Amino acid sequence: MMKPRKNIALVTTPDHQIYMKEIPFPIAEPDEAIVHVKATGICGSDVKFWKTGGIGDYVVSKDIVLGHESSGVVIAIGSDVKNIQVGDRVSIEPGQSCWACGQCKSGRYNLCPDVKFVGTPPTDGTLARYIAHKASFLFKIPETMSFSTAALVEPISVALGGIQRSGLVFGQPVLICGAGPIGLNALAIAKAAGAYPILVTDIAQHKLSRAREMGADLVLCCQTSWDGKEVARRIRGLMGEVEEGLEPEVALECTGAQTSFYAAGYALRSGGVLMEIGNGHNEQMIPLQNLSMREVDVRFLFRYINTWPLVLRMLSAGKLVGVEEMITHTFKLEESVEAFLLAADPKGGSVKVQIVDEDEDEAE
Amino acid sequence: MMKPRKNIALVTTPDHQIYMKEIPFPIAEPDEAIVHVKATGICGSDVKFWKTGGIGDYVVSKDIVLGHESSGVVIAIGSDVKNIQVGDRVSIEPGQSCWACGQCKSGRYNLCPDVKFVGTPPTDGTLARYIAHKASFLFKIPETMSFSTAALVEPISVALGGIQRSGLVFGQPVLICGAGPIGLNALAIAKAAGAYPILVTDIAQHKLSRAREMGADLVLCCQTSWDGKEVARRIRGLMGEVEEGLEPEVALECTGAQTSFYAAGYALRSGGVLMEIGNGHNEQMIPLQNLSMREVDVRFLFRYINTWPLVLRMLSAGKLVGVEEMITHTFKLEESVEAFLLAADPKGGSVKVQIVDEDEDEAE
Amino acid sequence: MMKPRKNIALVTTPDHQIYMKEIPFPIAEPDEAIVHVKATGICGSDVKFWKTGGIGDYVVSKDIVLGHESSGVVIAIGSDVKNIQVGDRVSIEPGQSCWACGQCKSGRYNLCPDVKFVGTPPTDGTLARYIAHKASFLFKIPETMSFSTAALVEPISVALGGIQRSGLVFGQPVLICGAGPIGLNALAIAKAAGAYPILVTDIAQHKLSRAREMGADLVLCCQTSWDGKEVARRIRGLMGEVEEGLEPEVALECTGAQTSFYAAGYALRSGGVLMEIGNGHNEQMIPLQNLSMREVDVRFLFRYINTWPLVLRMLSAGKLVGVEEMITHTFKLEESVEAFLLAADPKGGSVKVQIVDEDEDEAE
Amino acid sequence: MMKPRKNIALVTTPDHQIYMKEIPFPIAEPDEAIVHVKATGICGSDVKFWKTGGIGDYVVSKDIVLGHESSGVVIAIGSDVKNIQVGDRVSIEPGQSCWACGQCKSGRYNLCPDVKFVGTPPTDGTLARYIAHKASFLFKIPETMSFSTAALVEPISVALGGIQRSGLVFGQPVLICGAGPIGLNALAIAKAAGAYPILVTDIAQHKLSRAREMGADLVLCCQTSWDGKEVARRIRGLMGEVEEGLEPEVALECTGAQTSFYAAGYALRSGGVLMEIGNGHNEQMIPLQNLSMREVDVRFLFRYINTWPLVLRMLSAGKLVGVEEMITHTFKLEESVEAFLLAADPKGGSVKVQIVDEDEDEAE
Repeated sequence: MMKPRKNIALVTTPDHQIYMKEIPFPIAEPDEAIVHVKATGICGSDVKFWKTGGIGDYVVSKDIVLGHESSGVVIAIGSDVKNIQVGDRVSIEPGQSCWACGQCKSGRYNLCPDVKFVGTPPTDGTLARYIAHKASFLFKIPETMSFSTAALVEPISVALGGIQRSGLVFGQPVLICGAGPIGLNALAIAKAAGAYPILVTDIAQHKLSRAREMGADLVLCCQTSWDGKEVARRIRGLMGEVEEGLEPEVALECTGAQTSFYAAGYALRSGGVLMEIGNGHNEQMIPLQNLSMREVDVRFLFRYINTWPLVLRMLSAGKLVGVEEMITHTFKLEESVEAFLLAADPKGGSVKVQIVDEDEDEAE
Repeated sequence: MMKPRKNIALVTTPDHQIYMKEIPFPIAEPDEAIVHVKATGICGSDVKFWKTGGIGDYVVSKDIVLGHESSGVVIAIGSDVKNIQVGDRVSIEPGQSCWACGQCKSGRYNLCPDVKFVGTPPTDGTLARYIAHKASFLFKIPETMSFSTAALVEPISVALGGIQRSGLVFGQPVLICGAGPIGLNALAIAKAAGAYPILVTDIAQHKLSRAREMGADLVLCCQTSWDGKEVARRIRGLMGEVEEGLEPEVALECTGAQTSFYAAGYALRSGGVLMEIGNGHNEQMIPLQNLSMREVDVRFLFRYINTWPLVLRMLSAGKLVGVEEMITHTFKLEESVEAFLLAADPKGGSVKVQIVDEDEDEAE
Repeated sequence: MMKPRKNIALVTTPDHQIYMKEIPFPIAEPDEAIVHVKATGICGSDVKFWKTGGIGDYVVSKDIVLGHESSGVVIAIGSDVKNIQVGDRVSIEPGQSCWACGQCKSGRYNLCPDVKFVGTPPTDGTLARYIAHKASFLFKIPETMSFSTAALVEPISVALGGIQRSGLVFGQPVLICGAGPIGLNALAIAKAAGAYPILVTDIAQHKLSRAREMGADLVLCCQTSWDGKEVARRIRGLMGEVEEGLEPEVALECTGAQTSFYAAGYALRSGGVLMEIGNGHNEQMIPLQNLSMREVDVRFLFRYINTWPLVLRMLSAGKLVGVEEMITHTFKLEESVEAFLLAADPKGGSVKVQIVDEDEDEAE
Repeated sequence: MMKPRKNIALVTTPDHQIYMKEIPFPIAEPDEAIVHVKATGICGSDVKFWKTGGIGDYVVSKDIVLGHESSGVVIAIGSDVKNIQVGDRVSIEPGQSCWACGQCKSGRYNLCPDVKFVGTPPTDGTLARYIAHKASFLFKIPETMSFSTAALVEPISVALGGIQRSGLVFGQPVLICGAGPIGLNALAIAKAAGAYPILVTDIAQHKLSRAREMGADLVLCCQTSWDGKEVARRIRGLMGEVEEGLEPEVALECTGAQTSFYAAGYALRSGGVLMEIGNGHNEQMIPLQNLSMREVDVRFLFRYINTWPLVLRMLSAGKLVGVEEMITHTFKLEESVEAFLLAADPKGGSVKVQIVDEDEDEAE
């Protein structure tokens, strides 16, 4: 048994404060494990909970520990746990579903009405030194994989979940809207999955430069004065330079912005798939008749299912080129507030900010 | 060879007139047949072309013959025609696609960019005595089937196309929004396909009475003061009386109205399918975040593909209960204008108005 | 708390004996319930375990309680059970999977390598008065449903599982090979799902008469001298009488016999689906080149997934016509051996034999 | 108009002769084009027609021109041809389907009962200087693509068709049985599609060396003394070294050999897909019960559909690494017999033998 240190956590409040605080050492249920969290990435949703107090029906109505992109070391296990052992290095799947409802039983456990998703109200998150987590949502990582890389599985899973739901297959021309972390992860996967050509749009040239470095075949820097039809016209123009009449068959919309949705809808080939991965406004206008007359289906993603084993395998094999380079800044757990200030600063130049707790626990 | 009579047709104009006029006897290309049209139903889109001058990109910029729900007798065939013979009684699939583009070759010929759909600008329709039509889109009907029934294949195909795209399977709880002709056809098919329970919504009680007669398990008469969430709450309430917690897994939205779309979206089970069959405004607001967080996919339908053989077989076998009873009024071809005046009158009490040309051609 | 009576069970042995014996009252784990089993159907596999000592890798290497088609009353629940209460009348899903492996997590829990399926070695079955069963595999039944009907959910689920995997949709011409209990259940579902026409084959005329009564559109009594090609020729001949050139698009092969598999393969339309539901020899010859050149895919079924709620709903609604009439004989629990002797007798005239325990438990 | 040279062709006979002969200059129907064939690959089926006189129902009952893997230059077009022009360099899709039957209309035109597939009895093939071919099955190639590469689209399409039907997606562990031309093409595509790990089996070490060079992650050289279970055990052993318990989810069986089919069946993960691409004996034994109890579906491929545009795009983009290196030997059209002698020699060391007609036609 190791001798635990002080348990500290990053907390946000209903009145938009964030601060570090000491919390009790967690207690594991029989099917849970205690994990010393070693690395956690900051997600746009973490910042949104802090700054706006909620996303959709998830409202910060009491103080809550943030964080859900994490990896760590198992330091204790409950009596029923079989899939992992003390000392295992693990990546953490944040949503813990019930395995008893119809959604869970049919494999869509992301839609479980009783899911507890860490770092989303009312469930505390992983930005703490020690947490308890359902063992069936912990995945052992290879010895050769760093905790930083293992903490990327969650944001990669969002992109993978979208690509899986989109039905993307080898050789399809693909449009990716948005070159933020999700868009770039989508790019890495679409590239590895043989999509071609891949066109990435954004309004920021420096993000598109990164997309280029990661292998985007085409990029389009959208001016804010362009409407959706204009963006679509330019997308088709660029694709048409690769092959006459070529149009995207799948659009991975990662921004949630209305113009981007319109552009994707108008740009897609008739019969194509508009995969909405981004998280936009509660209500949004769509070009219904155009989508309707061209049978452009709209699919949505809520988190992901069964992605951890696959992402870990592909990361180990080096198949997702450029994803680790997205970690632009790293802070210590004690510096979590500073990390959030940077992540929330649009001019801060960060892509993915991670918070790590490097010190090892001592054996007693 | 028969001795053709005067060829007359119902024409609409860019300035919203409709009138009967004499037109030339048609000429058949090698792959076409000449059909004496015997029965034609009036569709809401026919009325819309007349009254508003267009639907989406299809604009009545010159005089055009209306009509696309038809059956008739083959009176001549082109030199390359093999699938039908002179004298065959046929149902007419109105869209004639190119069979050369990628959409056609992959079986989605409804999305063919070069499709010629009769009765939709700029292609003349079937509300004429004699028309030329590509023979591969003519389907021989059984001797026992009336021309009136054979002219129902088109509107039934719209409903069937939606049900096919929705992925509806045996035993699913289904919501049908709208009890007009398309909604009622969808009801007949969903019922025959073993959906259960089937709940039909409309704002007109008399339409819902018809739905009840056709076997709707549940009906909901929506008040115009209710918003989409309220309608959804009541849909779930009614379904919950059949089985605790039951929610629709497929919604067949046949109205195109925004409130109805919202109601379908909110009422559906997470992971369900919102099948938009109706034709609404160019742009429409949708509850994007709710659909997104519950992975309610939105699919669209544009016409139909490969439905004729199946619908003819099911009609012959009497599997679509109540569809023939939807024909409430029948007019002669010469009375087409009167037929349109009735069909366009919301207080006229018509469900499906058909125009027939009963007289036989004389053999010369 | 009720006062339990003596717990008795039907046991088979490695040396092919069956006998009744007293067994201990079961103990429930925290996630289990104790069920007083009220009705149990005898399956062909029960007889096979008794008579041959095994099916595939499942070998009767020690005494085992048989039975897996059951319903009953919950008389006690473990501390973690939430979905049911004492006094609930339930239908029992026999396979209890682990909910931790990749198969379970992706919704294919029938393929869970650690599944415990009652009545299949080495797990004891439901042919006892009292059993313990994982509560998440118990489904409350409506007050209006009899225990006999509720015990039919299991064999109906086999047929439904096959139909679901086959992708059968409304209006498809379907071939059902075999008019035993599974074939007849498949007929009831295919009929309710709008398949048309449905052709049922068997080698016994009296079974086909039952199929006719249950609504088979066509039947073919196969002579044992016919080979697969000959049977296929006659199937196509019969379907062609309904509509020229009509061929089955889905074959539900419920016999496991090689000739029947061949017949299904040759009879199917190119691109059709041969759904193998029956359980045949370990190794079997197939017409590989014919299947290959016509892209006739072969799918297999192992038990079922997520069928209980749907089957209970459809049974309640009376949508599965004729399935209850399959229960031809009923025995008391104490007469289980007699029940098995009848079920195993090919000349006994039984379709589905059930064993019931009618007496109520007394409240203490 | 160019001045055509003597038209010569490679012919095989019912008594297994092959020889060059002069044939008439072809005549184009209105929807056809005349193509000067510039490059043609020899397929195993060409050799089989010559040596055995038939494949399945396709019998060499009269002299027939062989060849179906071709590219060339359009030298004349029929009056209805719009998609290509004289002078266009094209790749030839060999199957010309009817576009009128239900299979064609639903996008499975490979299953068209009236398809005319060049080089397969009774339709003459492309191993001639000049041929007539339906223009909708000619695809313009980029200026930068050689005729040799363009003639590879056909064998690549076989592999792609199999991969498309298998449902292979990014990240799946894949087994490829056989390292001949089809297996190696499948390897190139699976690799480009992000399958991982990819294990290739064969009985010839030198073929596996080529697979290694093309990027196979694992190879297994099977000894002829091993049965299917033994091969499967070793496949799982090798995959398990990549990740504990890893099993192939898709098997691309490219040999048609019974042992290989068994190995694929036993090696696959439960719920996996056994994609039979190879062409084996008419009748073959399969491990039915094992496939059945693990729901290992068997899918078959007959040629391909809609692959040309995608393969041409991926070849242009250099996404199919190593496929062009498979062309080991090239002969002139006049030397076609020598080319066949080499291709038919198992010790000849050839992978893909091509026949080219390099000389240009002269403008008159």
